Amino acid sequence: MDSVLKAIAADRAAALEELKAFLRIPSVSGDPARRGEVRRAATWVAEYLGRIGCRVEVVETPGHPIVYGEWTGAPGRPTLLMYGHYDVQPEDPVHEWTSPPFEPTIRDGAIYARGAADDKGQVFVHLKAAAAWLKAEGRLPLNLKFLIEGEEEVGSVNLEPFVVERAERLKADAVVISDTAMLAKGAPALCVGLRGIVYCQVDVQGPATDLHSGTFGGSVANPATVLCRILARLTDERGRVTIPGFYDEVRPLTAAEREAFAALPFDEKAYREALGVSALDGEAGFTTLERRWARPTFEVNGLLAGFTGVGSKTVLPARAMAKVSMRLVPDQDPEKIIEAFEATVRRLCPPSVTLRITRMHGSRPWLMPTDHPATQAAVRALTRGFGRPPVFIRSGGSIPIVTALTERLAAPILLIGFGLPDENAHAPDERLDLDNFHRGIETIAHLYAELT
Amino acid sequence: MDSVLKAIAADRAAALEELKAFLRIPSVSGDPARRGEVRRAATWVAEYLGRIGCRVEVVETPGHPIVYGEWTGAPGRPTLLMYGHYDVQPEDPVHEWTSPPFEPTIRDGAIYARGAADDKGQVFVHLKAAAAWLKAEGRLPLNLKFLIEGEEEVGSVNLEPFVVERAERLKADAVVISDTAMLAKGAPALCVGLRGIVYCQVDVQGPATDLHSGTFGGSVANPATVLCRILARLTDERGRVTIPGFYDEVRPLTAAEREAFAALPFDEKAYREALGVSALDGEAGFTTLERRWARPTFEVNGLLAGFTGVGSKTVLPARAMAKVSMRLVPDQDPEKIIEAFEATVRRLCPPSVTLRITRMHGSRPWLMPTDHPATQAAVRALTRGFGRPPVFIRSGGSIPIVTALTERLAAPILLIGFGLPDENAHAPDERLDLDNFHRGIETIAHLYAELT
Repeated sequence: MDSVLKAIAADRAAALEELKAFLRIPSVSGDPARRGEVRRAATWVAEYLGRIGCRVEVVETPGHPIVYGEWTGAPGRPTLLMYGHYDVQPEDPVHEWTSPPFEPTIRDGAIYARGAADDKGQVFVHLKAAAAWLKAEGRLPLNLKFLIEGEEEVGSVNLEPFVVERAERLKADAVVISDTAMLAKGAPALCVGLRGIVYCQVDVQGPATDLHSGTFGGSVANPATVLCRILARLTDERGRVTIPGFYDEVRPLTAAEREAFAALPFDEKAYREALGVSALDGEAGFTTLERRWARPTFEVNGLLAGFTGVGSKTVLPARAMAKVSMRLVPDQDPEKIIEAFEATVRRLCPPSVTLRITRMHGSRPWLMPTDHPATQAAVRALTRGFGRPPVFIRSGGSIPIVTALTERLAAPILLIGFGLPDENAHAPDERLDLDNFHRGIETIAHLYAELT
Repeated sequence: MDSVLKAIAADRAAALEELKAFLRIPSVSGDPARRGEVRRAATWVAEYLGRIGCRVEVVETPGHPIVYGEWTGAPGRPTLLMYGHYDVQPEDPVHEWTSPPFEPTIRDGAIYARGAADDKGQVFVHLKAAAAWLKAEGRLPLNLKFLIEGEEEVGSVNLEPFVVERAERLKADAVVISDTAMLAKGAPALCVGLRGIVYCQVDVQGPATDLHSGTFGGSVANPATVLCRILARLTDERGRVTIPGFYDEVRPLTAAEREAFAALPFDEKAYREALGVSALDGEAGFTTLERRWARPTFEVNGLLAGFTGVGSKTVLPARAMAKVSMRLVPDQDPEKIIEAFEATVRRLCPPSVTLRITRMHGSRPWLMPTDHPATQAAVRALTRGFGRPPVFIRSGGSIPIVTALTERLAAPILLIGFGLPDENAHAPDERLDLDNFHRGIETIAHLYAELT
């Protein structure tokens, strides 16, 4: 390892210049006008992988290309698959940036640019770790595959078909992804849980057209009122979801898990203030971290009915619509939950309106055992890289590709993030702490060794 | 009368063209961008009144102008005050119109346009009746005053101060308003009761910005869910409003009133089918007519929160908005009801969100004795115009000025409507039956004579 760490140390200044070159490419996948720039970022990654010694393929898709690279010179050794994305969020509102989003600038020990944290900077950590090994030792201690896409910020629509088609080629003993965050500066973290989700749209149709609420009101069901009454009855006063069976398969938090959550240096007051609310709220009997990471939820994501403009209109709406989603935790099954949801909504709906429920997407919750050998290897690598053991955290969100890779490759997944929670992914002044960037490269270099 | 009726008959085609010109003006009083168009409609009315021989004044207000016209050439004779409005509801949702809302189109014996029934078409009936008398006889059989405002659809906020200020000038022996509906085609009606209303907007503010529903969901109150829970709790399973004290001052229907309602040729099946619902719905223990005319309601008029576009977005909305209204019946007091509503909503709102309630407009319920001489004159005029006696009906809607005129002028008010219940006032494809339009002109011409 010493030679590898020396190579990393010697390369610090050069690595930064290379990262700047990568960040300068405005690879905004959601902007059709930037299609050429997105491809330029793919080419940049592919050339980099080729230069350090990987076999590389730029795979065309109906959208932006997928870069696939591999180094398979360690027969008999384990195989690690790295997933990341080279595309970035739009830079709007651009006038809120202190320095231009695509002119990487170093200030206060961080590199500021769109994509610095999400996810180019973190992808580059992996490229540099592999480069250091190959330069210092002429080999990697394991087989390494890179799967770096260009559509993560627009839904990864072409990735899952690719994974299904190339499942054999992508086969790995572990998967590593750096697209999450540390708990805080100086607090390295391994994310071991994601919530699942089911998302659907509920449409309540009443009269054929909007009606005068005076002339007709009182004699016909109001779809907006009906929808509110249905949605209201799906949760109770204690913040619990009332759908029968909803909690049946929720794996209770163990005492050890609750203790571990409670031990994390989470500043509830700062969190509340950052959200701009006078009080936090949620399921009775659980802490804020438990509510976000390990408890299922029911959320109304959107509501629309009747007159919503300025002023007043005395309309009895013909229809009312809600977008709703439920976040799921182990061992809830998205299919069972959506069935129970539908049955409940249908039961709560009066016969005087017509109900339509449209299922939109879903993904399973994901939990990685903390005692898994791959998890433990990551713990050791992070401990070496940061000089202190990581904490286990979870994320309340869902990363669809994690579920897809779990199901298709049957491999453990390591979510090792080097970003910080306040580094403005998706917002102006996105940045990546440089100390975390360099420690990240060392951590991943250690991970290769620890996984063997 | 013969000469007047002949003049009306000779003018049928011309009257339609004039009406079309009036309907083409998009005088949407609730849309600040249409301020100029609203004024254009006022000018159109004023010029028309001037042309037929009235003294006219366009009265400026802080909002849209009031058109006042009078013909006082019958000293010693009674004075009739006609009230109407030249403003219209917004045309949304505009894509649901068969023909454009401001391009009047004749189909199947009706004229389709926003304002055809509510209220431009009915206002124009009165202009034409006066025009016919003045053209055929050079005089009217009574003194006639026109009070035609441009803010009826936004609460008539500037009309009441005007009525108070000009009470002496507006003095009349009776008031006639055509802004209601007949019972059905071939069933002329005199409306002797109106519900009152209070209307307001409820805004629930949660976090400072929209949040990711995965990362944050479960730890912070969702304003959309909160709003649904509040609104849902304002009515119960039996269709009753649960606001404490809401029914305290509701005057119960007498046995005679319930019998009179029941005797009306109201076709519940046709009504249900016209509305396009599989079942009617409403307060338990009351008939459909009782629910519409003589029972108070709570309605959600609009809902908006979070993501409402195509597809899905996992957003926890920063805010949620509802437009709501309550229809009132004698002897409910709008002020007391809105106070009770606000207190209830505040009580139901959790401390983790911020609530704002904006009062928008209100009016008292109204009831007219059926044996009043003016009522009986209207019965005779309708009988002549339509060839059969009218029935006494009520309207579930609210005409704020009726209460104000009742209180300020101490005159009986005649609500003689020429619209039909299914003519989509406030909805797409609003229209006015042309046979009723022409019979309406004759009826009002008769009314002038019957009132003397």
